[in-house]
Amino acid sequence: MAIVLGPNRYGKAETRLVRVHRDGDTHGLVDLNVSVALAGDLTATHQTGDNSGVLPTDTMKNTVYAFAKQHGVGEPEEFALLLARHFVRTQGHLDSARVTVESFAWDRLGPHSFQRRGDHTRTTAVTVTREAVQVVSGVTGLVLMNTTASEFHGFVKDRYTTLPETRDRILATAVDAKWRHLSDEADWGKSFQGALDAMTSAFVNTYSLSLQQTLLSMGTMALTARPEIAEIRLALPNKHHYLVDLSPFGLENENEVFIAGDRPYGLIEGTVTRDDVPPAASEWYL
Amino acid sequence: MAIVLGPNRYGKAETRLVRVHRDGDTHGLVDLNVSVALAGDLTATHQTGDNSGVLPTDTMKNTVYAFAKQHGVGEPEEFALLLARHFVRTQGHLDSARVTVESFAWDRLGPHSFQRRGDHTRTTAVTVTREAVQVVSGVTGLVLMNTTASEFHGFVKDRYTTLPETRDRILATAVDAKWRHLSDEADWGKSFQGALDAMTSAFVNTYSLSLQQTLLSMGTMALTARPEIAEIRLALPNKHHYLVDLSPFGLENENEVFIAGDRPYGLIEGTVTRDDVPPAASEWYL
Amino acid sequence: MAIVLGPNRYGKAETRLVRVHRDGDTHGLVDLNVSVALAGDLTATHQTGDNSGVLPTDTMKNTVYAFAKQHGVGEPEEFALLLARHFVRTQGHLDSARVTVESFAWDRLGPHSFQRRGDHTRTTAVTVTREAVQVVSGVTGLVLMNTTASEFHGFVKDRYTTLPETRDRILATAVDAKWRHLSDEADWGKSFQGALDAMTSAFVNTYSLSLQQTLLSMGTMALTARPEIAEIRLALPNKHHYLVDLSPFGLENENEVFIAGDRPYGLIEGTVTRDDVPPAASEWYL
Amino acid sequence: MAIVLGPNRYGKAETRLVRVHRDGDTHGLVDLNVSVALAGDLTATHQTGDNSGVLPTDTMKNTVYAFAKQHGVGEPEEFALLLARHFVRTQGHLDSARVTVESFAWDRLGPHSFQRRGDHTRTTAVTVTREAVQVVSGVTGLVLMNTTASEFHGFVKDRYTTLPETRDRILATAVDAKWRHLSDEADWGKSFQGALDAMTSAFVNTYSLSLQQTLLSMGTMALTARPEIAEIRLALPNKHHYLVDLSPFGLENENEVFIAGDRPYGLIEGTVTRDDVPPAASEWYL
Repeated sequence: MAIVLGPNRYGKAETRLVRVHRDGDTHGLVDLNVSVALAGDLTATHQTGDNSGVLPTDTMKNTVYAFAKQHGVGEPEEFALLLARHFVRTQGHLDSARVTVESFAWDRLGPHSFQRRGDHTRTTAVTVTREAVQVVSGVTGLVLMNTTASEFHGFVKDRYTTLPETRDRILATAVDAKWRHLSDEADWGKSFQGALDAMTSAFVNTYSLSLQQTLLSMGTMALTARPEIAEIRLALPNKHHYLVDLSPFGLENENEVFIAGDRPYGLIEGTVTRDDVPPAASEWYL
Repeated sequence: MAIVLGPNRYGKAETRLVRVHRDGDTHGLVDLNVSVALAGDLTATHQTGDNSGVLPTDTMKNTVYAFAKQHGVGEPEEFALLLARHFVRTQGHLDSARVTVESFAWDRLGPHSFQRRGDHTRTTAVTVTREAVQVVSGVTGLVLMNTTASEFHGFVKDRYTTLPETRDRILATAVDAKWRHLSDEADWGKSFQGALDAMTSAFVNTYSLSLQQTLLSMGTMALTARPEIAEIRLALPNKHHYLVDLSPFGLENENEVFIAGDRPYGLIEGTVTRDDVPPAASEWYL
Repeated sequence: MAIVLGPNRYGKAETRLVRVHRDGDTHGLVDLNVSVALAGDLTATHQTGDNSGVLPTDTMKNTVYAFAKQHGVGEPEEFALLLARHFVRTQGHLDSARVTVESFAWDRLGPHSFQRRGDHTRTTAVTVTREAVQVVSGVTGLVLMNTTASEFHGFVKDRYTTLPETRDRILATAVDAKWRHLSDEADWGKSFQGALDAMTSAFVNTYSLSLQQTLLSMGTMALTARPEIAEIRLALPNKHHYLVDLSPFGLENENEVFIAGDRPYGLIEGTVTRDDVPPAASEWYL
Repeated sequence: MAIVLGPNRYGKAETRLVRVHRDGDTHGLVDLNVSVALAGDLTATHQTGDNSGVLPTDTMKNTVYAFAKQHGVGEPEEFALLLARHFVRTQGHLDSARVTVESFAWDRLGPHSFQRRGDHTRTTAVTVTREAVQVVSGVTGLVLMNTTASEFHGFVKDRYTTLPETRDRILATAVDAKWRHLSDEADWGKSFQGALDAMTSAFVNTYSLSLQQTLLSMGTMALTARPEIAEIRLALPNKHHYLVDLSPFGLENENEVFIAGDRPYGLIEGTVTRDDVPPAASEWYL
């Protein structure tokens, strides 16, 4: 028996980049949080501190900023692909590069003025290896609520079950979704907006008997709307809204007054996939 | 010399209320975080644990939910006034009630469907005493950026000054503002939106030689636009965007590539007031 | 009627300083978060952007780092006094400097090795004006719990009261305390530890009929133990632990199983003071 | 081509449990955050909202509290195993249960008095399937620093590299580690403390030429010390401490004054494993 080094990677996380594109008096604004991780044979630095195969993480940060100048920054998927391919190409002794990006949207207020939106964060995770390129897009922090059209009943009851059945409840969630693309070429902006709209529309229009049913509907609608998506993974917290018992005050609560709970929360996680797509080239749930 | 009890207050903080107004098939949604604090002669509970003058904080929470049913919830200032007046009226042995409210906005997606916005939080702090009523409104988390039209030069230079003067920089801030109303009656919704628009417009349209200049402009515009406001207090972090030195890579950075810094940050705080208004009835900066 | 500039200040917030004191092979470590704010006649920069009276906040940051080298960093109160006096002395056109410091404690693991503690943060707020010097020390994030020896009953009951009286409950809080010193000279380290120990001991040893009673006991013990403290202000959240109703499962809960609640929480705020001390030179609650 | 449901699971996250063990006058305290997730054939609820196979997440929460009473709560691994086995046994139509626990440590101040520590969080993730039981333990938030005995040089230099080589730097990290046990029986408390001590000791005593070298040392020491551990996964942020350039002030900075940076940070991730252990029964990195 020996103790050995297993899978490993390293990189620079959370490089905060703001790129201003100055086209005359009207400026464009891109606001990103970029993380880079490289993997390959890094045994030497682990075993002896021999860094001859280690590109400094500081250099990865510099590269993000330099590339932002040299190439501009368009869709985050494109920028992530550019960076990941660069690292795999220049670090010939390594195997793969993974670049993840959070994109923060701003609304335009004037030619050079902007207000930050906060209703969701767009995400990207690109993995480039010697053999394959994989692009994952996603969204976090998209908070949706239906104040009715949600029921929950007919569930398993055991000794510890006290939850009453309900034919009318609030259904609320903070969408955390990631979807794997079939290819490394797409109209990324249109694809993202289309997936977002499809999921939102599915949430709004599904009469829900369980959050799982809503999840499958959201994933199915996204795949139906966007043929370039191979599969999608949704993690939907059930943000509980508890009906307040107003009877001690002689009042009836007809689904009007709720406690918005913090913890605990239900957590529904599921994948929706096309049945004929190739498997993922690399783990992409993380 | 004796050790004595000084100023004190107590209450329930952060009661999370979601109120659904069901008008036929179209629902309305109000999402609030309500805090209540009462003050007066509370010596007995401090000295001996005699709680005969203490309304439980649990009751304050119940009152929030019961009032939401009984009275509905319109503008947060109105709901806060209703609650504060109730506590002062019913707790005759106490002197004052302070109710603060955070309001979270949602965009409508359908008759009973909503998406939470995240671009700012509306705030209210109402103080009702036996003698006076004071209403403060505010906003937090409104993040604004100008990518040009901002300079900073001509400042004091001492032994420790290394900052270069600049004729073109990014100016970005997260607006934290509170404003005191002259009266306890107003069109609160219109007043809030008007103040918000005035501040945002001032930020956009002020050619800025210092964030202080922008602050005064924002406060002045808000008071000019809204005669019902007595004074306004702004706390504006200077969210630094550092120009990246790309010269080591043979690149010139013409105000295009920036590091979005987290800490430290400048913090500019100032009050703008009408010179003929009565002083505040109670401390309202907190 | 005119719209005018009211009270204002500006500075650099959250300069993160780590100072290593190298005495031979054994290193000392100080880990601080320093904020500086200056006030005085700053009308020009607000009105016209004339910065001839504005020391850049960047220079304040530089001064923190330079002073850390030049003077070393001992007790945070001393370092804050040094900085505040420097700014008042060198910026003759201004009136006051306020320096606040958060100190993060580390346990020693070896001559140059440390582990960060996380059980509380020590705070300091020093205000230096032309006329006076005021030193405030404090603590945040000190979480204490008694699993018994706490009752709550005999309180006001109104239409909205449903809370049952209890003779045995958990009492838990996260101590947020600030205390004003009588002088600008003290053994700051000993004073802080003494105040902390006194408050903790009072929490442990007070049989509590209300959190207010515990608060007064904590403040009184701190003032009794430390004659150099003029007054103390405590903000004590009542971190509710709700007894779980296990009766549906045929189980009795004899104060053994609790839900640790997040929101809402009670919030008990109070000041304990000596009755013969001079008033504060400047507002210090913030 | 069809769109189909892929892997999925559901459960209740973040049930906050405080368990008081009352042995006469001396109380014991356990403070946990428990999450449960079940997986299996959940097609019906996804496709039609048929919940006949769905145990409500509310029941999972109830079970946590009821079990805390019925069985007491000892080591978190034991409590997680108890819960996970219960759900797999009683939900015969499902395949697996995963229970994760965060444990918060408190120091004793008296027979029924405690102070919360904040120097790390102990974690557990137990997965029980029909075929296997897997126990993972871990730690997060353990922040360590060496103020010297760390170098970084000999690294790859490309067009974008500007980092100077160094023979003396601060090395600081926040340890996030998880380790998989060979068996579902162990002295969990002793095992956790032993792994923690081994990692901490390795961090302190490794003269580091790269954080990777320190990581391998930490993992190796943990496996050497604790034969019951099969493999360990470490994620170590390189919490950068930047040497301040004091030369503009005529001062020399001999590794004494540092900026504690927030973002970006290096992120070093690696696994250390015995070469003869069976593969994991289920994914455990998440």
